[in-house]
Amino acid sequence: MFFASDNWAGAHPLIAESLLRSSGRYEIPYGEGEIDRRVERRLSELFERDVRVFLVGTGTAANALSLASQAKPASVIFCHPRAHVMHEGGGVELMTNGGKLVPVRTAGPGASKIDPAALETAVAPFLALDPSMGNMVAVTLSQATEAGTVYTVGEIAELCAIAHASGLKVHMDGARFSNAVAALGVTPAEMTWKAGIDILSLGGTKNGCWCAEAVVFFDPDDARAVPVLRKRAGHLFSKSSFISAQFDRWLADDLWLSLARHANQMGETLAAAVRASSSLRLAWETGSNQLFVVMSDEKAAALRAAGATFHDWPAPDDFRELGPDEKIRRLIACFATTAEDVDRLASYF
Amino acid sequence: MFFASDNWAGAHPLIAESLLRSSGRYEIPYGEGEIDRRVERRLSELFERDVRVFLVGTGTAANALSLASQAKPASVIFCHPRAHVMHEGGGVELMTNGGKLVPVRTAGPGASKIDPAALETAVAPFLALDPSMGNMVAVTLSQATEAGTVYTVGEIAELCAIAHASGLKVHMDGARFSNAVAALGVTPAEMTWKAGIDILSLGGTKNGCWCAEAVVFFDPDDARAVPVLRKRAGHLFSKSSFISAQFDRWLADDLWLSLARHANQMGETLAAAVRASSSLRLAWETGSNQLFVVMSDEKAAALRAAGATFHDWPAPDDFRELGPDEKIRRLIACFATTAEDVDRLASYF
Amino acid sequence: MFFASDNWAGAHPLIAESLLRSSGRYEIPYGEGEIDRRVERRLSELFERDVRVFLVGTGTAANALSLASQAKPASVIFCHPRAHVMHEGGGVELMTNGGKLVPVRTAGPGASKIDPAALETAVAPFLALDPSMGNMVAVTLSQATEAGTVYTVGEIAELCAIAHASGLKVHMDGARFSNAVAALGVTPAEMTWKAGIDILSLGGTKNGCWCAEAVVFFDPDDARAVPVLRKRAGHLFSKSSFISAQFDRWLADDLWLSLARHANQMGETLAAAVRASSSLRLAWETGSNQLFVVMSDEKAAALRAAGATFHDWPAPDDFRELGPDEKIRRLIACFATTAEDVDRLASYF
Amino acid sequence: MFFASDNWAGAHPLIAESLLRSSGRYEIPYGEGEIDRRVERRLSELFERDVRVFLVGTGTAANALSLASQAKPASVIFCHPRAHVMHEGGGVELMTNGGKLVPVRTAGPGASKIDPAALETAVAPFLALDPSMGNMVAVTLSQATEAGTVYTVGEIAELCAIAHASGLKVHMDGARFSNAVAALGVTPAEMTWKAGIDILSLGGTKNGCWCAEAVVFFDPDDARAVPVLRKRAGHLFSKSSFISAQFDRWLADDLWLSLARHANQMGETLAAAVRASSSLRLAWETGSNQLFVVMSDEKAAALRAAGATFHDWPAPDDFRELGPDEKIRRLIACFATTAEDVDRLASYF
Repeated sequence: MFFASDNWAGAHPLIAESLLRSSGRYEIPYGEGEIDRRVERRLSELFERDVRVFLVGTGTAANALSLASQAKPASVIFCHPRAHVMHEGGGVELMTNGGKLVPVRTAGPGASKIDPAALETAVAPFLALDPSMGNMVAVTLSQATEAGTVYTVGEIAELCAIAHASGLKVHMDGARFSNAVAALGVTPAEMTWKAGIDILSLGGTKNGCWCAEAVVFFDPDDARAVPVLRKRAGHLFSKSSFISAQFDRWLADDLWLSLARHANQMGETLAAAVRASSSLRLAWETGSNQLFVVMSDEKAAALRAAGATFHDWPAPDDFRELGPDEKIRRLIACFATTAEDVDRLASYF
Repeated sequence: MFFASDNWAGAHPLIAESLLRSSGRYEIPYGEGEIDRRVERRLSELFERDVRVFLVGTGTAANALSLASQAKPASVIFCHPRAHVMHEGGGVELMTNGGKLVPVRTAGPGASKIDPAALETAVAPFLALDPSMGNMVAVTLSQATEAGTVYTVGEIAELCAIAHASGLKVHMDGARFSNAVAALGVTPAEMTWKAGIDILSLGGTKNGCWCAEAVVFFDPDDARAVPVLRKRAGHLFSKSSFISAQFDRWLADDLWLSLARHANQMGETLAAAVRASSSLRLAWETGSNQLFVVMSDEKAAALRAAGATFHDWPAPDDFRELGPDEKIRRLIACFATTAEDVDRLASYF
Repeated sequence: MFFASDNWAGAHPLIAESLLRSSGRYEIPYGEGEIDRRVERRLSELFERDVRVFLVGTGTAANALSLASQAKPASVIFCHPRAHVMHEGGGVELMTNGGKLVPVRTAGPGASKIDPAALETAVAPFLALDPSMGNMVAVTLSQATEAGTVYTVGEIAELCAIAHASGLKVHMDGARFSNAVAALGVTPAEMTWKAGIDILSLGGTKNGCWCAEAVVFFDPDDARAVPVLRKRAGHLFSKSSFISAQFDRWLADDLWLSLARHANQMGETLAAAVRASSSLRLAWETGSNQLFVVMSDEKAAALRAAGATFHDWPAPDDFRELGPDEKIRRLIACFATTAEDVDRLASYF
Repeated sequence: MFFASDNWAGAHPLIAESLLRSSGRYEIPYGEGEIDRRVERRLSELFERDVRVFLVGTGTAANALSLASQAKPASVIFCHPRAHVMHEGGGVELMTNGGKLVPVRTAGPGASKIDPAALETAVAPFLALDPSMGNMVAVTLSQATEAGTVYTVGEIAELCAIAHASGLKVHMDGARFSNAVAALGVTPAEMTWKAGIDILSLGGTKNGCWCAEAVVFFDPDDARAVPVLRKRAGHLFSKSSFISAQFDRWLADDLWLSLARHANQMGETLAAAVRASSSLRLAWETGSNQLFVVMSDEKAAALRAAGATFHDWPAPDDFRELGPDEKIRRLIACFATTAEDVDRLASYF
């Protein structure tokens, strides 16, 4: 019963087989092969717009390159205090040459969303262009968030409007992009550039691939620095078809969306079981494949003894509803989670 | 007829199938899974010594992390002027926080090997510890070299002795490590730590894998900074088993050595054909899977018209034996090169 | 009536004359001259301990070099949200190669001091040595603080004990070190290494010099990287006697302490006038040369019309005592402030 | 008898007195004061064009900021192998975030000038915009050179034309700018922007000031990144008037030019004495204040015993005219060198 994260499963069989089939082919290396170009075309179709795509192998690389593409000296980038970029070993700081991630307060407990009013307040002191403040360049938001919640399209648009008014680009960390699209029932275009997103880290790894992440630029002008940045950081794969073959199958037949819907559905089934339980409660509602459950130490021990894997989750500063021996536990479903495992786990609730 | 590089082929069928079989398993992520540990054990056996291993996806990452592990402020690293690290988009410079690669002259045309006397001369001005000179930290050498030549074990030991006498670590860029071992007929241990090598970039990608590179530390103390460095640079894969599964199979049954011997043999067959040709000649002898052939523009055009892919190669500064319409052309054989293709290419010589 | 900052005045006449007298001498450059060594000896006497000293020209340089001396990959440094290092154009981030300044909450409004309990909370998640968290290396505190307050020796010792227990070094940003010593009535040793401070930025510029800052290491082992770091950053002056001549006079006859006492006294005179005023009030008590005064816009305009220079000061997040047209205004006295100017300004209160 | 370098003397009396007089004034800090602006105006007059000026304290800072102003990811900067920037502790590498200095071969022994043909050859491989090559951004040349020689205006123009044709900016390291202007008998404008120079490090320190260097941009557009870069690197002085006061006097009455002419004249007197000596010879002719003299160890010991200070100088790789116990010794005259000292030294020749 694997609920520790959506990166413990291997790859979806269809993707693994696609990769096997591609293994015998010679391809022009370094992202210039036919399959690389096909993935870029498929993504342009998916986003209903010509996009510029850079395939990389990790989400940290995707996020760092996305933000480094906009770097100036002493870059300032606004994010949520719990954003994943805050805990990627300083990847953004490395690739932006010492940029600074400035945390922006959240709207309410659990939401893990940037509050628009707090963003406006955070941006204000940088508008005077005082050299001691550095150069603010971007806002990054996670969709779905690290707390499993999902920004509405309207919320994204509001943040983008504030950012653009101050000359900032907006990046979306879409490590769980598919889950968010599935949760909202909107199109990828509606959730990104139509709402104002400039750059997207599109994650395949947590949703059926082994290692397949794409940095997607909706305006090719924003991508000018990226070829050198990617090579420099060691993220230009020679046999790039290894990644593009994964994306190629992932994008075909809307496999990505089916897998995300499945993961979200498994999450919702679990959430319903939590709601029905007298000994557990949801720390907050999410609507995606991640659940945050208030659980006593005793109950957690029992579930683990039964074979379940999951992580404790540090409570947000402003979360006040924990009993003395309670903690928040994170349960994550993924493309490979089975209804059997979910039912079995729920039977212990 | 693909002779452009050893990174155009996909993966060897045995490796692709191994990966497919691993796809359905859950594994602890981030390099902590059972298969990750097994690869480390296998490498310790291969090198007849406990080694500390970090798996990454590209050779640029492996080289930059290897050298960054030894970084001090204003690091100085000695290398051959044609070393691959000199043309990796500044990867070493990025990950060493602005280190400097100092080229050391070569012994003779084509050899592309660091000259021991030149290394001693290059090191001398740094011994006074003048802050304006920075901190010299390492020498890096490529085995096989970028010119296809192979250092003898004695040559490696001589360079290592000079480096160690000045407090420098020695890194081996083993993007074509397997080919060098096969060419010399020595053991991996003899060609590395027994000769004085401290850190190795061990390449699987050019020899049968899709993307599988390992940074191997022969002294674990040298590796202390690497966990953070790797995460920071975005080179810690969550589903790290996709790299370890490739290495797992590559290392089994000495597959790596069989594939390298095959590639070298294909290279030698081609070299023999060049030697027998009246219109071609070898720019220098290599003994590995890379050939450097002096070829007229007319002949190159004819071969390409026949379907051969290969690259022109800028002549070394001290290479004086080119006729007016001649250039050096690089022909590379790899694990996937067939005897049929070699014979067919040779038939045009 | 100059109360805008303590960096508007030039140099004290005794220091300017000392510099003039030194102008005709030849000195060995780059910090190796006799006068450079004498300053190091004088500082060792002042701190009652052998110290290692690096003279630089700006406080930003002193702070960044102090913290860079302890840098590891992905350095994490704890500081107060309003610490000066947070607004030095990313100087610490540059010289630590992309380190991260992590703000630690304050004890109460206006204090601008790091809260010990908050420091313990902030440190905790880094103790697991998870690569995604980077390497925590230091705490930096400002003495006097940016809010004019002064840590007691006991408060410093408590923070140092917490830091040292987690393996962190403690740096003191002593841009206004002299004012703090004068305010507390303790010795420099008591306020620094005897309380646990490892590294000090000792500021002369705001207290009578033109540009004279010293990085003082109480343990020479902590200074090993600094010679290269300083040269690299362009902060090794060839004619270093220019700085050491300023310090030489500043340290003689306790000139530094006399000047700081004068500045503090001018501050206290002004504070008394504020306390006596019916239209003004102190935002908080400081006890040093910096005052923070709640003042209406009308009153501020009147004072400025009368020729006073001073800055508005953004209210701390948790400062709740401002009326609708009130703001906090910062008034700073310095070595050159005259009693006449203070009286004249107070006459408008 | 001080001939070791032009940075051992203090400051010229007129400059020291000017600084003393300025010490009592309050000035707006951070480069925004009246005297700061006056220096910018004086420099605009000197260069017959509106220039954008940034005052800093060291030549390393000036060079690094000049080149950092043009930085892109993986910047490549061409220079002479013996350029001062090659040995500034990695200052350029730091401030360009890991840029690479690529040495370009010299025209002939001793000249220490970049050879135009060699520059064209060096630039060529970067024109293809291959990400593995990085981004070439600038050429830097030293005027006068580190070997005391002086580029003619025509030579400068030729290098600038080659650079501009490839989209590169040209920076002049003018640590000894005054000496070069005095040697050539041209105007500052003719030797810089009229010949194609884009950015100048203008050095006052070696020619009468204590610490006064200016980064001069002939096109303000090139300077856009500099305010943040300078602050970030700790090179924005609060009491900036202490630098501008030095420049203010240095520029008045062409003091800078008089001092440089004096230094050059002292150099020429010494050179004449060398030419007349039977036991010494000039390694090469310079025409400026730096001499490079072939001298036996015995003679060098005798001169030092007589009280002369000077440095040995590593012979260029291609300098072949040294006897077995001979070395090149560098003798430098400066603004403070007296005719008496020159005559006394020459009496030992």
